[in-house]
Parts: sequence; C-alpha cells; structure tokens
Amino acid sequence: MDLTKLFKPETIAVAGISRSNPLSPGRVIFIKNVFEMDVFCYGIHPEGGEIEGIKLYKRLDQLPKIPDSLVVAIPAKYTLDYVQQCADLHIPSCTIISGGFAEVGKEGRERQEKLIKIATDNDIAVLGPNCLGVYTPPLMDTIFMPTERITRPPKGTVALISQSGGVLVDQFFHKFKQINIGVSTAVSIGNRAVVDEVMLLDYFSNKDPDTYNIAFYLEGFKENKSREFLQLAKKSEDMVLTYFGGLSDKGKQATMSHTASISGNDEILSAALKQYLVMHPRKEMELLTSLKLLEILTHRKKPFDPMIVKEGNVVILSLSGGHGVICADLLDDYKLNAVEITDDEQQQMIDLVNPTARNIATFSNPIDLTGSAQDKDIENFIEYLSKIDRVECIIVLILPYTPSISFQVGRRIANVVSREKKPTVCFIPYIEKYGSIIESLELSNIPVFHSIEEAVQAVSTLKIRTRINTLKGQK
Amino acid sequence: MDLTKLFKPETIAVAGISRSNPLSPGRVIFIKNVFEMDVFCYGIHPEGGEIEGIKLYKRLDQLPKIPDSLVVAIPAKYTLDYVQQCADLHIPSCTIISGGFAEVGKEGRERQEKLIKIATDNDIAVLGPNCLGVYTPPLMDTIFMPTERITRPPKGTVALISQSGGVLVDQFFHKFKQINIGVSTAVSIGNRAVVDEVMLLDYFSNKDPDTYNIAFYLEGFKENKSREFLQLAKKSEDMVLTYFGGLSDKGKQATMSHTASISGNDEILSAALKQYLVMHPRKEMELLTSLKLLEILTHRKKPFDPMIVKEGNVVILSLSGGHGVICADLLDDYKLNAVEITDDEQQQMIDLVNPTARNIATFSNPIDLTGSAQDKDIENFIEYLSKIDRVECIIVLILPYTPSISFQVGRRIANVVSREKKPTVCFIPYIEKYGSIIESLELSNIPVFHSIEEAVQAVSTLKIRTRINTLKGQK
Repeated sequence: MDLTKLFKPETIAVAGISRSNPLSPGRVIFIKNVFEMDVFCYGIHPEGGEIEGIKLYKRLDQLPKIPDSLVVAIPAKYTLDYVQQCADLHIPSCTIISGGFAEVGKEGRERQEKLIKIATDNDIAVLGPNCLGVYTPPLMDTIFMPTERITRPPKGTVALISQSGGVLVDQFFHKFKQINIGVSTAVSIGNRAVVDEVMLLDYFSNKDPDTYNIAFYLEGFKENKSREFLQLAKKSEDMVLTYFGGLSDKGKQATMSHTASISGNDEILSAALKQYLVMHPRKEMELLTSLKLLEILTHRKKPFDPMIVKEGNVVILSLSGGHGVICADLLDDYKLNAVEITDDEQQQMIDLVNPTARNIATFSNPIDLTGSAQDKDIENFIEYLSKIDRVECIIVLILPYTPSISFQVGRRIANVVSREKKPTVCFIPYIEKYGSIIESLELSNIPVFHSIEEAVQAVSTLKIRTRINTLKGQK
Repeated sequence: MDLTKLFKPETIAVAGISRSNPLSPGRVIFIKNVFEMDVFCYGIHPEGGEIEGIKLYKRLDQLPKIPDSLVVAIPAKYTLDYVQQCADLHIPSCTIISGGFAEVGKEGRERQEKLIKIATDNDIAVLGPNCLGVYTPPLMDTIFMPTERITRPPKGTVALISQSGGVLVDQFFHKFKQINIGVSTAVSIGNRAVVDEVMLLDYFSNKDPDTYNIAFYLEGFKENKSREFLQLAKKSEDMVLTYFGGLSDKGKQATMSHTASISGNDEILSAALKQYLVMHPRKEMELLTSLKLLEILTHRKKPFDPMIVKEGNVVILSLSGGHGVICADLLDDYKLNAVEITDDEQQQMIDLVNPTARNIATFSNPIDLTGSAQDKDIENFIEYLSKIDRVECIIVLILPYTPSISFQVGRRIANVVSREKKPTVCFIPYIEKYGSIIESLELSNIPVFHSIEEAVQAVSTLKIRTRINTLKGQK
C-alpha cells in the first residue's frame, strides 16, 4: 500500500462541508486548503452550489479530475459509502476524520471491520478513522482545527506521528514551533484501522526523502505489530523515536477507553526498544530536546563531530557555582560522567582566566569561572578543554547577567566550537534581551537550550545517538 | 540579632565604587539604589569627589547620618576594616559582597573567623561574605548585576533565600517574573558566616509582616543548624519550603568546592523535612508550581476551599483523550488518586454534553469531552463534579484550538469555580493568542499552568499544604 498519495497529493477532495456552521471540521479543512495551502482542493456537497465563493461538486464522479486523496468529515454511518466510491473511482488514498468506529462499541467495531475490508480489497491507503488529519507543509493541512487557533511548526526533517490528535496539535505543534523543530509531515493516526505505525515507519523511512527523524507518540503498539515495527526500525537509516503515553497503571485505564489499545509491560518494552535501536525518551521534554538536537545534526555542515560522545564524559563550564551543582546533580539521572580534571590541568587553567576571577574560580569539574568571568575566559576554556581527548562533550552554562560578559559571547563561543569541533551544548536563560547571544549560537548550529536539564538531556541524546549509529554503521 | 535594618533600612552606604569601571559591583549597586530604588543611599570613596554627578564621602564617619546598613564590595583583605567601622559607629547591619573568605583556603578561613568575631561581639547582622546581595522591592536592590541585564520578580509574599547567588538571579528571578510569583525579599546568603538560614527563617517567619511563604535554595544545612531550623519551621505560621541542590553523588562533589558544605543523606533529610512540616519540592519546576499556588492562596478572597484536598482524589476533565492519558500517567508520580466515576454518574453525564460530543465522549475518569465540546459543556461538568463529595479536586485541561470552544471559556470556568468553591486547577498551553482566556482565569485567582505536569504538581501541593496546615492548626 503506497502512502505517497496520502501525504503528497497533487489534488484532494473534501466531503462534509457544512453550509450552516463555518467551524465544522469539513468546512475548516476545505477552506484552509483552498486559501492557505499549495495542494489543489475540490469541495463535495450533495447539493452543489458554492461556499465562500468556491464552487462545490455534488459527487466525486463529477470532479474535473480524479483526486489523489479524499478527506471525509461526515457522520460515521455515511463514511463507508465514500470509501466505496474511492474504490470505484480508483482514488488511492483517504483520510477519515469522523469518529464513531471501534472506539464507540459494537456497531462501531463492525463499521470499522467493513472499512478495513473495502480498503484492503481495493488497496486504498485509509488514514483514521477518528483522527485529526495530516499536515505536510507547505502542501497540505487537513487538520480540522482552524489555523488561527493552533500553532504550526515550520518545515523540517521530522516525521511526527501521533496516536492522539490532541497531543499532536497541542503539545507537539506548539512546542515544536517554540523551539524551532521542523516537520516534514505530521500525522494523526486515530484508530489506525488500516494505515498503522508499521506502514508509516516504512513509508517515512524508505520513501520520503524529506524525513530524517521519525517520532511516534503511541499509547501502545497495534496488536501483533510490535515485532514488525522493531525490525523495520532497526534497519531504518533514519533515527526512530517512540514516546509512550499511558504506561502507568492509571494511564493504562485511561488508554483503554481512549484508544482501546493495551500498553505493554514498561520494562520489557524499554529493553526491546533499546535492542532494536529505537530512541525511547521517557518525558515529553526529553523527546523535544532529542528532536531539536537530531535536527541540528541533519545539517550538512555539522557544528561538531557528534560521534565523539561514546561514554558521555562531560565537563561543565559555568559562571555560577550553583548552576554547576544543579547540572552535576543531573548527570547521574542521565547516566553521564563528570570528567575528572587533573591537578596539572587545574594549574594550567589558572593562566586562562582573568586576574579578578582567578582567585575565586573553581577549576575542578564543574568549573566555575564565577560572575567575574569575561568572554575571553570562556573562549580560552572551551579551546583548552576541546584539546583534552577524554573530554567528549562540554556543557557551557551561559549567564549573561554577569557584568563582564558581553553580548558578543555567543558569537565567540560559536567560533571556537566551530573551529575545535568538540561537541558543545549551551544553556542560556530564555529572555528576549539575550536574543542576540542565542541567535549567534543558533546561526552556527550550536545547540542551545533554556533549562539546564535540557542541556544534560541533549548530551544523553548524543551518547544514545552514537550507540545507535555505530550499530547501524552510520555517522 | 535583628535583621530588620539589613532588609528594610532607611539609609544605606556603599563602599567599593570604582571610578574607572562602571561595571564594578560596588558602582553598580550604588548607582541602582540612587537612581532606581526608594532607599536613601550614600557612596563611600577614599578620595571623595563625585561619580555620575553624585557626591561621594571619604569615610563612613563623615556621612551626614549613620546609615542602617553598609554594603561592602571591595577586595577581601580590606573588608574587616569596614566591619570594624560598623562596630565603632554602631551601624547595625552589613552586606559583604566580596569573595575571598572560607571558600578560598586557609587565609580566607582565618579572615572569615575574624569577621564572625567582630560581628558577634558587636551584634552586627552581617550578610555574606561572597554573596550577591539583597532585593527588597521597591525599597532596595544590592544585587550587583546591572538591572538591565537581569529580570526581577514583582513585589509579593515569598521570601526567597538562596545559597547560590547565580541560581537566585538566573533560575528564580527570571522564572518568578515569567509566571508572576512575587517576592517580599530575595536574599543571597553566600558563605552565611553570620546571618544563616536559622536567623533568616526566624526573621521572615516572625518579624516580617510582608512574608507568607519562605523558600530556601540550599546545598546543605549549616553545620549543627538543621535541628534548630526544623524546629522553627514546624512552629512557623508561614509555609516553609526547601529545595536542595547537590544531593546526588556528583552534585555533592560540586557542592564541596562551591560552598564547602556537606549535604546530608537524601532519604533521612526528606523524612525529617516531612516530619517538621517543611515542603520539600524535588525539582525546580515543582518549587515554582508550589510557590505560585501558595501565593494565590494568600489572597484574602481564596478562589476555592484548599483544605478539601486531603487524599488527593482527582477528576481529570479533558477535551483530548491523549491529554487525559498523559495527565492520568502523572497522578501516580505525585501520589494522587483518580476518582472512579460510577455507572449512574456516567449516565447522568450524558445529558450534560452537547449532542455532537455525546456519542464520542468518554465519561470515565479521565473524562474526555472531545474536540466537539463547547464552553457550556465544560461549565456543566465542573458544576456537576463539584457537587460530588468524594471529588476533592478537578484538573481541567483546556485546549482552545478545538473549534467550538470560545474565548469566553476562561471567564465561564472562573465563574463556576468561584461559585462552587471546589478546588480546580487548569492547564492551558502558553500561547499569546490565548491570553484573554488565561487572564480571565487569573483575574479570579484560579490557578493556571502551562504544562500538564505543573497542573498535577499543583494538586500535590494542595494535598501537602492541607496536611501541614491541619497539623499546624491553620487553614
């Protein structure tokens, strides 16, 4: 079953356009694709006529051209008729927004069985039912939320697949945009009656040249699909990430009523994911941090050599003792190691720092250059630490409120990292007035995070990435 | 030792004003108190003259009036002379910004011993050394960072005391401002040679009418001070919170070089804090969430009756199944319980929701009203759930991207909560365009958080607060 027409159609049609309610899902989808997106979009309404000045067709077989994909947003009981029309007219793909299938009892389950049969017999890639839609910028957006209400992420390299439409649109879209992670395609899979995580992994891994990282939010694997999924993931040239909801006892109960799927045993699942080279962030923030870092590393010009980070041996470079302490606390949580700095090295470090800071600085790890540090000191230390082989990664905690740090500090750090190529991750508080520092780091693709924990998570991601890519024979 | 003059002086003097470096700590402190703050501020410079148009005095004994407090920001070796002058002139308090004491070896330790002796013999409340300063809005700000570089929290009810100046100014100031937590006073305690956590707890608890919540960032208690601290905390009418850094193995190493204090055993510490009725958030986000909630509950007009939350029995009300699942997962982590909704209640709920959502909604806990929910449905459910006695708290997950939710939804939730008085905590994504919804909730003091985990943490805070206040005989 080919998903290309589902995600990259030239022409789509939308059924379920209400005349009376401008907020009905079908009408929202129709109007946004006509007015905002690149795809060519037809509207279907049994009575024809027009809406917002756009002609509507009475039936699918009256369209000037057979569309590549049909979006159905009508009451459940009428949906199968439309899927049958797809079969008759050779429309190769279909997204069913409508709820009222396996998630709502016996009648719904039977309806879903019939849907599966028509789709399978006729090789129609059916997404859903009970889903939010698809967002493939700048081509298509069949997410039924009004565009002005949601926040959409930019174009990028992450295929984002979610079993919960709400989580996709709220948790992920908004945060992706906020921290500038881009998507190639975002998919709400709903009941995944036909198109499921295995087919999606295969498509994004092998058939979509725009995708380099594939992230799933799942509340459990589809029955009998976990093995196939894991085997595909292991072979994939893309990084595959899964983030699971509903793994706690209370979460499991919730999941059953939400998507009728049973989550597996947490520990067994984690072990399997590790074995099959799937990144498995345990928290939402960790997923976001990983994706941000992975996207940076898809750039042809990598900011540093990420494969150096094998064991997770870190030096923390701070301008505040307390920040160093908090960061060191977190290394444990993420199975990273603080590199011990020898007495000889500490002696050499004294000359790298300005005389005022020299007497109060700490040269053991975490290094604390104190509030008297200057730009040049930070530059000196990154350069010095970069040349120590057993240092795999530097975490720089930038606190621009210290008086002697200039707003040039970002550019200076970016330059020395780009030159030395030692993996370096920066923390800087997210405050608008520090924007130029953040921007100068990001322009050089140096990863910048706005909490200490995210910076530590990013190093953990580097370590896990090295393991996976080594086993996959990639870089 | 009375700390009133240290934190609420009428007049201060600053020593250590550089003529050549406008960013030197003493000069920054002098200028900001002269130009920005309410306190009357004298400058001391051995050569007199003026700086930025303001007259400087050559010596402390030449000031027109004996100040209530002296701020010293000069090299360590000259500091003791100034403290002696405080003794001679009966200046009752002094803040020593300068480093170069116990944190830097034998000579420094000896200097600190001498400092303690002068202060104790003459009853001078000495803050520091090696500290950042004090911020008591709108009176005084002796934090030596230029105001335009940092972000300061508004005036409020939290006394914020930090062993790390960097953590105070960066982590806390910035985030307090961001989520609108106000401080009565913020204190960087540095080496806490004289003024320590016990004296501070006593002062803020018993002598400062502006403080209702007292939050400490510590990297361990001062030697032999833990028992006294805990006993004071148990008697305090204010809520006392401690957040510890440096408790992990790696963190402990870092702490030793940072503040030369040894952290206690983590588990024993936690048990002791619980026994002595101290809130003990384990993560920075949890501290912030707790403080935000506690500050809301200091308002004379409380939004609901917080003491209802005894066991932590929660109903989750969501517009997205996935959000409900994530939230239910988190209840476990925070020792909260999902209230089971009976079949009878579920039957009654059917009539509370509009016909479109009715067929696809889930009425077990977490309740999912789906993307078809309307404002009125949410209002109906909060009202209905409020009347169920065994429901102690409602978590409402507001997703304003769903088409039928209006921007009135915040006001409508605020009204029904204010009327029913059932503890209710809201999650809503932090997006500027949702501002009016957030604002209408906050105007009625309904707690609003911008991640699901924070909403769950807030309920956990309510439960802990109920326990502590019950044992203290407070409400």
